[in-house]
Amino acid sequence: MRFDQRHLLGIEPLRPDEITTLLDLSDKYVTLNRQREKRSGILSGLTQINMFFENSTRTQASFELAGKRLGADVMNMAMQASSIKKGETLIDTAMSLNAMHPDLLVVRHPQSGAVDLLSQKVNCAVLNAGDGRHEHPTQALLDALTIRRAKGRLHRLSVAICGDIAHSRVARSNILLLGKMENRVRLIGPPTLMPAGIDQFGVEVFDDMREGLRDVDVVMMLRLQKERMDGGFIPSEREYYHRFGLDAEKLGFAKDDAIVMHPGPMNRGVEIDGTLADDINRSVIQEQVEMGVAVRMAAMDLLARNLRARPKEVMV
Amino acid sequence: MRFDQRHLLGIEPLRPDEITTLLDLSDKYVTLNRQREKRSGILSGLTQINMFFENSTRTQASFELAGKRLGADVMNMAMQASSIKKGETLIDTAMSLNAMHPDLLVVRHPQSGAVDLLSQKVNCAVLNAGDGRHEHPTQALLDALTIRRAKGRLHRLSVAICGDIAHSRVARSNILLLGKMENRVRLIGPPTLMPAGIDQFGVEVFDDMREGLRDVDVVMMLRLQKERMDGGFIPSEREYYHRFGLDAEKLGFAKDDAIVMHPGPMNRGVEIDGTLADDINRSVIQEQVEMGVAVRMAAMDLLARNLRARPKEVMV
Amino acid sequence: MRFDQRHLLGIEPLRPDEITTLLDLSDKYVTLNRQREKRSGILSGLTQINMFFENSTRTQASFELAGKRLGADVMNMAMQASSIKKGETLIDTAMSLNAMHPDLLVVRHPQSGAVDLLSQKVNCAVLNAGDGRHEHPTQALLDALTIRRAKGRLHRLSVAICGDIAHSRVARSNILLLGKMENRVRLIGPPTLMPAGIDQFGVEVFDDMREGLRDVDVVMMLRLQKERMDGGFIPSEREYYHRFGLDAEKLGFAKDDAIVMHPGPMNRGVEIDGTLADDINRSVIQEQVEMGVAVRMAAMDLLARNLRARPKEVMV
Repeated sequence: MRFDQRHLLGIEPLRPDEITTLLDLSDKYVTLNRQREKRSGILSGLTQINMFFENSTRTQASFELAGKRLGADVMNMAMQASSIKKGETLIDTAMSLNAMHPDLLVVRHPQSGAVDLLSQKVNCAVLNAGDGRHEHPTQALLDALTIRRAKGRLHRLSVAICGDIAHSRVARSNILLLGKMENRVRLIGPPTLMPAGIDQFGVEVFDDMREGLRDVDVVMMLRLQKERMDGGFIPSEREYYHRFGLDAEKLGFAKDDAIVMHPGPMNRGVEIDGTLADDINRSVIQEQVEMGVAVRMAAMDLLARNLRARPKEVMV
Repeated sequence: MRFDQRHLLGIEPLRPDEITTLLDLSDKYVTLNRQREKRSGILSGLTQINMFFENSTRTQASFELAGKRLGADVMNMAMQASSIKKGETLIDTAMSLNAMHPDLLVVRHPQSGAVDLLSQKVNCAVLNAGDGRHEHPTQALLDALTIRRAKGRLHRLSVAICGDIAHSRVARSNILLLGKMENRVRLIGPPTLMPAGIDQFGVEVFDDMREGLRDVDVVMMLRLQKERMDGGFIPSEREYYHRFGLDAEKLGFAKDDAIVMHPGPMNRGVEIDGTLADDINRSVIQEQVEMGVAVRMAAMDLLARNLRARPKEVMV
Repeated sequence: MRFDQRHLLGIEPLRPDEITTLLDLSDKYVTLNRQREKRSGILSGLTQINMFFENSTRTQASFELAGKRLGADVMNMAMQASSIKKGETLIDTAMSLNAMHPDLLVVRHPQSGAVDLLSQKVNCAVLNAGDGRHEHPTQALLDALTIRRAKGRLHRLSVAICGDIAHSRVARSNILLLGKMENRVRLIGPPTLMPAGIDQFGVEVFDDMREGLRDVDVVMMLRLQKERMDGGFIPSEREYYHRFGLDAEKLGFAKDDAIVMHPGPMNRGVEIDGTLADDINRSVIQEQVEMGVAVRMAAMDLLARNLRARPKEVMV
C-alpha cells in the first residue's frame, strides 16, 4: 500500500497506484459506514479543522462526519463571519490556526490556488475541499469509487462529462483522474461553457448531447454554476434543458447499462430530468454522496498515517 | 418496557404506555444529568444530525447536549445557509443526508407535515423538533415529565393552556398528550387565537382567565407567536397582558398549589408577570428546560434500541 | 498548587500565586499540544458551552479546541441568531442554559460587567472570554505565559503596551496582571486613546513611541478597535502608523532582545510593519496563539477541579 502525499491538494500530483490505494481503503470505510456502529479510533487525539471560505453544507457535512467517525476532534470555522472581516489576510488566518496545532485542515476557498498557498504555510496535512475553478479532489475520488463499484473497473471506460465545464473544478479533477486511470473522456456542452485549450487534456469535445453520449458507460452531469458566471453567456434554463439537460431520450444514445451521475445539489428540470435522477436502475446519485464520506475517511486516514510517520516539527 | 415507534413524529401515534415508558426512562436521565459526570455510551458509534430549517437555539442545544451526553457523533446543519438556497428540494436534501448513514435525524421545519414526509424517505429514526403548527412532541413530553414530578401523577389533573392556541404546535401536542393520559384540559385565550373545531378534542374553551383558571392544578402559558400571525388580529402587548397575562391575582383563582409553566423564551410583562415567573414556589419554568434534555435523551435512547433491533437495510 | 477561584471573570480577583499555578499548568499543556496525540480525559463527562454574544472566531476556536482536547462535551451557541431576538433577557438565557447542567460556561459579551452578572445566576464555572472594555483574562494569561517562556521570568520586566488603550480590555487585563507580578508597565498612545484616571494603576504614560519604548523588554501592540470608537477622535490609518505603528526603527529604542507581541488579528501597515510581524527573531505573535489554547486548557482544568471538590447543588 503506497500513498506518499503530505497533502491532498488535487488529483494532479497523485500517481495511479496512490489513487487505487485510496479507493481500496475507501471500500473498507463503505462497509464500516453501513454498520450501525460506525466508529474507528484511528484519528483519536488528532484535531481536524474545517475552514470553509465558501458555503457548502453538503461537503462540509461529509468531512465532518468522516472525521468524527474516525474519532478526531473536529472543529468547523465559519470563515465568512471571521477575522477576515477584521482585515486579516488568508495567510495570517492560516498561521494563527496552525499555531493551534491542527493535524488535518480541510479548506474550501473561492480562489484557485488559495489552498496550495495555504498548505505551504502550515505544519499539518491540508485537504482541498474545492478551490475556485481549480480542483476538488475528493469529489473526483468519490466519483471514481462510485464508477468502480458500479462498473467493476476504473479503466477503459468511456465517460461523458456534460454541461458547464468551464466553471467546474469537479470537471477538471474528474478529467485528470479519469485520464490517469486510462479512460476515454468526452466533454459535452455549449462552446461558451467549454474552457479554452481543453483539447490538450486528451479529451473529445462535443456540443451535441446525442452525439457525445453515443455508447458511453458513464454520464456525469454537472451543476449549472450560475453563481460563478461573471457576465458573458447565461443560458435560459428552459433552453439549456432542451439542449443539454439529461432525459431518457438522450440517455438512450448511451450504452444500455450506462450509469447517471450528478455531484449535487441538482437543479431538477434544468440539468437533469427528475424521474431519471430518481431511477435507481440508472442513477447512482445517492451512492455518490455515500461514497463521499468513505473517500474522505480514507484520505484523512492515509494523510494521518504519513503525519505520524514524520517527526513532528516544533513550530514556533 | 414497551416503545414500538420507529420515529417520534408526534404525540398522536403514541400509546399511553409508550408515554409512560418514555417518562420513566427520562427520570433516570434527570438523575444522570444532575451528576458532575454526565456521560453514557449508549449512542456510541451512532450519528445524530440536527437539521433546523427554522432557528431555535434552545431546542437545538437541548438535542445537541442530549446526543453528546449519550456518546453520539452529533452534527448540526444550519439549513438556512444550505443547498436549499441552491434550489434543492427538501426531499433531495433528506435523501443526500440519508446516504451519509445517520441513525437519528432531528428536524425542525416551518411547514406542518414536512417532518412526516421526510421520515418516509430515510432509513434512520426521525425526531420531530417542531413542524409548523402541527406537533412538537418532545416539548409535550418534557411538560408531562415536569407535571408528573411536581404533582406526583399525570392523570386526573386539571390543566389550563393559555394564550395563543391557534398558532401553537406546543398547545396541540400538549392537548393530545394530556388527553391520552386522562386529564381535563381547558384552553383560555381570545376567540381570534383559538383554532376552529377545537371542541372536538374534548377540551373546554374559555375567553376569561379568571373563569378558566378556577381550581386548575397546572397553568401552562404559551408564547405569543407574533412571527406566525399572518395578518388578522394582533393584540397590543399591553391589552394582551391585561386580559390574558398571568399575574398573582389571576393565579389566585387556580388551586393553591397550582404550578406555572412556560415553554420559553418568555416575553415578561406580556404573557407573564416577571416576578411570578421567578417565584420558585410556583414556577417550574427552569425545571422544564432541565426536563427537556432528559426527555430527549430518553427518546433517542428508545429509538436507537429499536434501530438496533431491526436489521439495517442496505440503502443504495 | 493553589487556585481557589470558582470562576475566571478577570485578572483582578487573582492572587499572584494563583497566576503562577495557572501558568505552570499551562506549560504542561503546551507540551501535550505539541504531541501528535493531544487528548486528555480530564473533562470527560463535563459539558462546556461557549456563548459568544460578539463574534470572535479565533478566541472561540481556542476555547473549543481546549475543551475538546480535554474530553469535554463542547457546544457552541451563536447568540446573535438566538432567542435574544425573540426578546429574551440575558438572565433568562443564562438561567435556561444553567438548567441544562453545563459545567463550564465560556462567555463573550459586548457589555462590561455582563459576564459577572451572569456568573451570579448559574451553578457552573464561568470563564470571561471578553466583556466590553472590562477584562479579557485568558488573553492576559496567554500573554504572560508567552513572556515568561521568552524571557525566563515574569517579574521586573519593563513592558510597553502601545496603541488604543482606552477601548482595550486586553490592555486592562494585562496592566492588572503585569502589575500584580511586579513588572513596570508603560502605556504609549495618543492622549485621546488613553483612558481617564489611568495613572492610578501605577503605570507610566507616553505619547511618543521612541521615548516610551526606550529599554523595554516587551513591546505589546494593540488592535485599533475602530468598531468600538463611538464618535470622537478616529485617526487616519496612515497618520496612526506614522506616529504609533511599530517598525524596525522605533523598535530600535527598545532593548536588543525585546520581543514583539500582538493579540491579533493584525492590521499590517497600521499597527505594525508586516516584515517585523513575521520576524521570528523578534515577533512571538504565533506563539501567543499557541499559548492561548494551553492557557485555556489549564484554566478549565483548574476550575473543573474546584467544581468536583464542591458538592453539586441541586438546582431547581
